[in-house]
Amino acid sequence: MNDNLIFPHERVDDLQLQGLKLIQNPSGFCFGVDAVLLADYASKTIKKNVHVLDLCTGSGIIPILLSAKTQAEKIIGVEIQKTVAQMASRSVKLNGLENKISIYCDDLKNAAEHFGRSSFQYITCNPPYKKLGSGILNQADETTIARHEILCSLDDIIRVSSIILKPLGKLCLIHRPDRLVDIITAMKHYGIEPKRLRFVHPYPYKTASMILIEGTRQGKPQLFLDPPLYIYEKPGIYSQEIHAIYGREELQL
Amino acid sequence: MNDNLIFPHERVDDLQLQGLKLIQNPSGFCFGVDAVLLADYASKTIKKNVHVLDLCTGSGIIPILLSAKTQAEKIIGVEIQKTVAQMASRSVKLNGLENKISIYCDDLKNAAEHFGRSSFQYITCNPPYKKLGSGILNQADETTIARHEILCSLDDIIRVSSIILKPLGKLCLIHRPDRLVDIITAMKHYGIEPKRLRFVHPYPYKTASMILIEGTRQGKPQLFLDPPLYIYEKPGIYSQEIHAIYGREELQL
Repeated sequence: MNDNLIFPHERVDDLQLQGLKLIQNPSGFCFGVDAVLLADYASKTIKKNVHVLDLCTGSGIIPILLSAKTQAEKIIGVEIQKTVAQMASRSVKLNGLENKISIYCDDLKNAAEHFGRSSFQYITCNPPYKKLGSGILNQADETTIARHEILCSLDDIIRVSSIILKPLGKLCLIHRPDRLVDIITAMKHYGIEPKRLRFVHPYPYKTASMILIEGTRQGKPQLFLDPPLYIYEKPGIYSQEIHAIYGREELQL
Repeated sequence: MNDNLIFPHERVDDLQLQGLKLIQNPSGFCFGVDAVLLADYASKTIKKNVHVLDLCTGSGIIPILLSAKTQAEKIIGVEIQKTVAQMASRSVKLNGLENKISIYCDDLKNAAEHFGRSSFQYITCNPPYKKLGSGILNQADETTIARHEILCSLDDIIRVSSIILKPLGKLCLIHRPDRLVDIITAMKHYGIEPKRLRFVHPYPYKTASMILIEGTRQGKPQLFLDPPLYIYEKPGIYSQEIHAIYGREELQL
């Protein structure tokens, strides 16, 4: 029995993927469709036996999904918040994935020093989306930290990734479209060439609400644009691709 | 009679917009949907009484469309090819637009010197899309020059624009999606902030085939993404928006 892995205020979600489960704190930040889309997009190019680093791993949703969707040898999730990192570690244990996934609790800005230069072939990150405004956020709680660039900025993520990635290693992010210029500019600045780009729209004819972008360290300049991904085909009806990504007919995103 | 304005090998197209006509050389490069989309996208932000410069103007299609779609005071088209520039000038005359539109025949790389720094509020350009490969193009004919970066590069266009534009003046381009990173990088490099971006798809669910992008000289960083523009709703049926842009029900693009 794994009951001792789950705290009373937590819930266990069935990921409906090879029996995988995830511990979540319903009063904290729970994973959304963005984490699922990022794991799926990254899984298309993560090769066999590579080592993957997931920055801002939170509940560990991305390492756990990637363990099933790829043949990566080792996946390490970095999470700065101690209670969140511990919860992610318990999820890894709950799934018996300790040989494949490790959760490392630290500020990602220390990751280059900790893991060393050119140490990973692939990095994923579902970062906080919101830029820090001029106002001060009083409540730096778990959800606020996951959503706002309080403890790390987009620039930090891309800079650190450029050090940790091996040459031709890839960084894959999901973010908001209004940060596209910032992402491309920072990637180019740190020697990561944007190579794949996909826009995620709630519906056809609607403005994209998310972008998936993959860059290659020291990659040759040439952007490949993917077809648009629509969450819904029409109101109340998920697109065929979303059904395929979630791997089931019944969906409650 | 304006018959002396049209040469025997040329044809006159009715633009079906306020009676405007365009002289074209069917054996040369004729305008396509991209020119019409660029003129429409730019017309949304071209203010009353501004001076507009159209680089790589070719047949003059964009100045002529903008003369009807905006309240710009003066529109100048720059075209390097003498016979093409002369044909554009004859189209201006054919439409009686000599007071509003001028065609200037020169290399756009001389435009900063000719027009002076900070001299225009708006610049449009439908540039050659194709990068020069390592192979040598033997036939540098009219069509090849319009399609390939033989006589000017994307970098030339953005660099020259950054000099000619007034502060907060705008540069609007249509290009291929695989040049998005190059465009954003060059705009940022020359102090033009990408502010509006729109993807043009042949159909919903298909990868975008063109991008419309507008940057502002010394603009504040913040990208605004527009909803996608679909040429066709389904095979053989143009989208409502394309009908609206062309301003008529019957279409032959």
